[in-house]
Amino acid sequence: MKKIGVGLIGTGYIGRCHSIAYAQAPTVFSLNAKLELEYLAEITPELAALRAKEFGFKRSTGNWLELIKDPNVDVVDICTPNFLHKEIALAAISQGKHIYSEKPLALTASDAKEMWLAAKAANVKTLVGFNYIKNPTTQLAKEIISSGEIGEIVHFYGTHNEDYLANKNTPIDWHCLREKAGLGALGDLGAHIVQMAQYLVGQDISSVIGDMQTVITSRPDPNNLQQYCKVENEDQATALVRFSNGCMGTIETSRIACGRKMGLSYVITGTKGTISYSQERMAELKLYLHTDDPARQGFKTILTGPLHPDYKHFCVSAGHGIGFNDQKTVEIRDLINGLANDDMKLYPDFEEGFKVSRILDAIALSNQIKSWVDVSDII
Amino acid sequence: MKKIGVGLIGTGYIGRCHSIAYAQAPTVFSLNAKLELEYLAEITPELAALRAKEFGFKRSTGNWLELIKDPNVDVVDICTPNFLHKEIALAAISQGKHIYSEKPLALTASDAKEMWLAAKAANVKTLVGFNYIKNPTTQLAKEIISSGEIGEIVHFYGTHNEDYLANKNTPIDWHCLREKAGLGALGDLGAHIVQMAQYLVGQDISSVIGDMQTVITSRPDPNNLQQYCKVENEDQATALVRFSNGCMGTIETSRIACGRKMGLSYVITGTKGTISYSQERMAELKLYLHTDDPARQGFKTILTGPLHPDYKHFCVSAGHGIGFNDQKTVEIRDLINGLANDDMKLYPDFEEGFKVSRILDAIALSNQIKSWVDVSDII
Amino acid sequence: MKKIGVGLIGTGYIGRCHSIAYAQAPTVFSLNAKLELEYLAEITPELAALRAKEFGFKRSTGNWLELIKDPNVDVVDICTPNFLHKEIALAAISQGKHIYSEKPLALTASDAKEMWLAAKAANVKTLVGFNYIKNPTTQLAKEIISSGEIGEIVHFYGTHNEDYLANKNTPIDWHCLREKAGLGALGDLGAHIVQMAQYLVGQDISSVIGDMQTVITSRPDPNNLQQYCKVENEDQATALVRFSNGCMGTIETSRIACGRKMGLSYVITGTKGTISYSQERMAELKLYLHTDDPARQGFKTILTGPLHPDYKHFCVSAGHGIGFNDQKTVEIRDLINGLANDDMKLYPDFEEGFKVSRILDAIALSNQIKSWVDVSDII
Amino acid sequence: MKKIGVGLIGTGYIGRCHSIAYAQAPTVFSLNAKLELEYLAEITPELAALRAKEFGFKRSTGNWLELIKDPNVDVVDICTPNFLHKEIALAAISQGKHIYSEKPLALTASDAKEMWLAAKAANVKTLVGFNYIKNPTTQLAKEIISSGEIGEIVHFYGTHNEDYLANKNTPIDWHCLREKAGLGALGDLGAHIVQMAQYLVGQDISSVIGDMQTVITSRPDPNNLQQYCKVENEDQATALVRFSNGCMGTIETSRIACGRKMGLSYVITGTKGTISYSQERMAELKLYLHTDDPARQGFKTILTGPLHPDYKHFCVSAGHGIGFNDQKTVEIRDLINGLANDDMKLYPDFEEGFKVSRILDAIALSNQIKSWVDVSDII
Repeated sequence: MKKIGVGLIGTGYIGRCHSIAYAQAPTVFSLNAKLELEYLAEITPELAALRAKEFGFKRSTGNWLELIKDPNVDVVDICTPNFLHKEIALAAISQGKHIYSEKPLALTASDAKEMWLAAKAANVKTLVGFNYIKNPTTQLAKEIISSGEIGEIVHFYGTHNEDYLANKNTPIDWHCLREKAGLGALGDLGAHIVQMAQYLVGQDISSVIGDMQTVITSRPDPNNLQQYCKVENEDQATALVRFSNGCMGTIETSRIACGRKMGLSYVITGTKGTISYSQERMAELKLYLHTDDPARQGFKTILTGPLHPDYKHFCVSAGHGIGFNDQKTVEIRDLINGLANDDMKLYPDFEEGFKVSRILDAIALSNQIKSWVDVSDII
Repeated sequence: MKKIGVGLIGTGYIGRCHSIAYAQAPTVFSLNAKLELEYLAEITPELAALRAKEFGFKRSTGNWLELIKDPNVDVVDICTPNFLHKEIALAAISQGKHIYSEKPLALTASDAKEMWLAAKAANVKTLVGFNYIKNPTTQLAKEIISSGEIGEIVHFYGTHNEDYLANKNTPIDWHCLREKAGLGALGDLGAHIVQMAQYLVGQDISSVIGDMQTVITSRPDPNNLQQYCKVENEDQATALVRFSNGCMGTIETSRIACGRKMGLSYVITGTKGTISYSQERMAELKLYLHTDDPARQGFKTILTGPLHPDYKHFCVSAGHGIGFNDQKTVEIRDLINGLANDDMKLYPDFEEGFKVSRILDAIALSNQIKSWVDVSDII
Repeated sequence: MKKIGVGLIGTGYIGRCHSIAYAQAPTVFSLNAKLELEYLAEITPELAALRAKEFGFKRSTGNWLELIKDPNVDVVDICTPNFLHKEIALAAISQGKHIYSEKPLALTASDAKEMWLAAKAANVKTLVGFNYIKNPTTQLAKEIISSGEIGEIVHFYGTHNEDYLANKNTPIDWHCLREKAGLGALGDLGAHIVQMAQYLVGQDISSVIGDMQTVITSRPDPNNLQQYCKVENEDQATALVRFSNGCMGTIETSRIACGRKMGLSYVITGTKGTISYSQERMAELKLYLHTDDPARQGFKTILTGPLHPDYKHFCVSAGHGIGFNDQKTVEIRDLINGLANDDMKLYPDFEEGFKVSRILDAIALSNQIKSWVDVSDII
Repeated sequence: MKKIGVGLIGTGYIGRCHSIAYAQAPTVFSLNAKLELEYLAEITPELAALRAKEFGFKRSTGNWLELIKDPNVDVVDICTPNFLHKEIALAAISQGKHIYSEKPLALTASDAKEMWLAAKAANVKTLVGFNYIKNPTTQLAKEIISSGEIGEIVHFYGTHNEDYLANKNTPIDWHCLREKAGLGALGDLGAHIVQMAQYLVGQDISSVIGDMQTVITSRPDPNNLQQYCKVENEDQATALVRFSNGCMGTIETSRIACGRKMGLSYVITGTKGTISYSQERMAELKLYLHTDDPARQGFKTILTGPLHPDYKHFCVSAGHGIGFNDQKTVEIRDLINGLANDDMKLYPDFEEGFKVSRILDAIALSNQIKSWVDVSDII
């Protein structure tokens, strides 16, 4: 059995999530290759060593450059803050490594394109961590749409709202700074729902008109709470979109949406039915079919189960529930099995990551010029 | 006790709803004036007579011109299809009658403005049937917003979606024709959610950018199902809006939204909390307060009860439920008590009806010119 | 058209509800007889006069004996506290009047039986105000069960929980006293869910074992809050029941169930599907069919609409909502149309009222003797 | 760091679940001991070898007797069908092994008591897999109850309903046979909700009266579908219970409850508030406080998050969701950390497992003798 050596860079929120998924993926899925947790990089050797022990990696380093050169590392897993994605990815690609990067792929569409083209030229495989599409429930939504059960899609409404910055006294952090994060809510959260829209509708978003606002314009300096620093990117953004086939859509995202803890949601209306979903109830999908007996029409709450994609690997009984880390485990399965098989493409890859960045940039531009923007005009 | 004589024109869907509300309003509310169901007009004397008997009106006519001239009629209640609102209203105003008109007030903002100015000049009172704001639950939402419980509003999301034309085989009717209906989903349904937005946010919508689509472009002729007729107005429309204070908003409306039977809904996000509501569960309001203990935060489902506006008149126990007609009964209470007291203003009146029409026209225009439109530029 | 003269005795909570229903019933339903609000009785002539004016009754009296003798009164509507039902009903029956009584029919099964037999002997029609079964949504449940859609019923779970006495500082009132109310939560609330069980399962409850508890054993005297009075009947009761065909059931009732404002609910499990309902969402029924495609199974939320029983009389659009008073309006329709037609039986009548009282007494007895009781052994 | 060697016997449904939890527990929790997956037993050496590879165990055997004698095995994990629990546990205890057994502990209370006393005498630690109490959401419920937020508990309603045998054509299996399973729905599912009741109320159940029914009395022989075999235990059972402090309760369980996929649920009513929970929405708890402002009362939906027990180890953001296997991972954490520390007691242990079996037997007995049974009279 082929071995796939993983090198993980960054062990904050999402690096920890990756590690939990690495731990359970082989048991859950019986992977097609042997997953080896080879190398882990953090900002200091000490922190790296601590995390390697916690997460089960063989070796560790305070210098990610060593990691990307390591011959036992087949894939570099980038879990750093956004602004480092590009530098690390380009360096790792130049070493011929496959790349598994968190989203958003880069601070700008231009950077994302450079990364995509570099990977393409180097013929390495890439995967971007848009993990919500790996959820069995959302895979079921995709299956229902693809099968034509709800007819042709005529409207997509999607949100990714959270409230992690809803309190105006929360000190500023890197998410609020252009140089570190790029866009604000759009980049951090909007990226997910934009990618979800493309995945579910099965069409690229081709034109957009957006509106954006920084509601809390300054925040306390974490080192001196009496001092206020400028928030440099948007707290909330909305956009009307059109998909390439003419389908209409609306996207909303906010990091100050009081009460939304995991407010990714979608309502997808077709000519024959409608799907409705909220990630806060991640194991249930609501399905309405207009073709039902008119006296028995209604939204049906389907609990994800073993008859739906990937669920049975976690549990053979329906309705027993899947968790946040489980969808990352599906992503890891896709990564490892995809790398195990030379002919298999990973999805969503850097090309898709670039497309998403381009749409986000188009929304930001349309907000500036106050009119619709063709996504293909961006770069 | 003063008498208020009502003359009702039109007895379809909404005229019947008005009549049920007229019947129960005096018992529910102990009105400040005696409500007299004086006169009823329909398209033929026979139908008028039949409906007068059913609905408890004293007299009937097949000619609405007689009704508006009748000295016992104090207020003319216009429940006809949209395209007749203007003619009837102007004629009745010229007779010095107060007007109670269904929405949308007119086919265009221009017509609506003419009606408003005529009423103003004649010093008659006017009321437009935006009945959803009369629901005790939505009045509670207004109370919560006004009291500052959820802080300053930073985002309004509202829909009025239904599926009455979702089936492509449903024959064409007057709703689909420009001359009879004016706008499509926007005029029929969008009017409600636009007015609701203004009521709840407490600010006028000042600029808009909209997108519209006729998905089912032709429908069978009801008289010859093999023959297809062109659908002349939009099936679905979406808009980004800004309120006069800068607050962002999104409006969605559709008449082909599979599964939505009474899909008026809103999510109102403030700096301290959020309100969420769906008219399909018309007696419950969801309220989230970000100021709650972080370990006990969540959306609370409040069942409307006697401690909330107007509910106690229907029932003194909480959670026992109010129905569609009950909110119209509140509207009738506002009408009769407002007419009983010379100093009292009715709301929402023709001025508000005009403002709503102007916003709808602005959305339609923005869709044509593909850029934002200042509402005040319309007329 | 035949005239039906109504004499109403008692105008508290439920008398007011009846009056609202009387007001709207003729418009909503186009009744088969002319409903005349003839006479109203209250404890003083002054209060009676005031209420008659508010509720639209022609005449009033401080002496209900006058009312029951009045030749223009065809049906006596008893809305007094429970302990007066029997005396009034027997007196009115002796005058040959039809009786429309609120529930519970009497303080004991023995009294209820006497009332039923008296009505039967006098050949007058009777109706008991178990209004929740008149709700279009519950009628839909009945229709689904009767049609066999969910197969044979194997389990009934029902509650009627409220929290009107949950606060231990709420002063004592007549509901807590044996002489005035008879049973506590069981009589006031349990009566509804027991009758609902019989209606929906379509079988009589034949044996029971119950448990009861007075949690708050004394309450402040309303006239002297420092003084405490004994609560004489149960705050909460539960029972296992068997229907005559062997079907199992569970009944729960409480007046101290914090958070339940209108907590009548049922879950009815059949061999092919399940129905679930909560009166707090009175216009939606949840239906699960085990015969659905296993990958598309789930509870469907059906919004009551014009294709379901009686709804269309209130509104011709689905999902627009019905209210608490509307189900009473259906009951009034049944009353008036039932009295208009000599061959029509009213339901639920005094016989059913007696059966319910007998079941409640059987539950109370089983609680005392700590073993199952055959309902037919009670009386 | 101490090593804890695990020997797993049985790799069906629940053995697989244990293995997934073993895989992720060290990463999620940074355990206090080194978890070693030492030995795995199955019915044949071949199957054992296959599963050992899939689940990451070092060695395997077709003979569990070898496993329990192995010096590297510190704890024997029993995931076999119910009827083997006793034999294996007693044998393993005689080898001085700690025991981690799935529920129900044994086929009868008598067997369970023998196991408990054997473990006590041998001074080995025991844990029974009542994993639903390990869910962070249910731990939050416990925390709320313990803190007194909802006052004194006055009523517990709990269910564990599923529909895995709802189809009458589903062939018979060991769950339906007395010798293999003991009780039916009560043993398989009821055990969970009975234990949950004791955990949450914080009191033992002291007396019960139950009702039971085998609805589908025979099922096809899986080897010959034309042949029918007798179902030997109950499909559904209900019971009224009293806790040792007098608190009332109701328990319902069924394996033919159409539509319930993971129908463990509870409603716990206190003197100041109420908690409501369904395992099908395993990451949300509904909390009602009667002490809230009366005009703002309602059930609040709390999404489990990092401020609640154990959640933060899975994810540091609220509302991101936990899955079925995650609660087993908490159980593994309790097991390993409990074994790592000599002074720590495991919970729920064999004593609790015995108590649960005794309650189940008491319910079954009460069904036979048709009267209440004191649980302490059982054994």
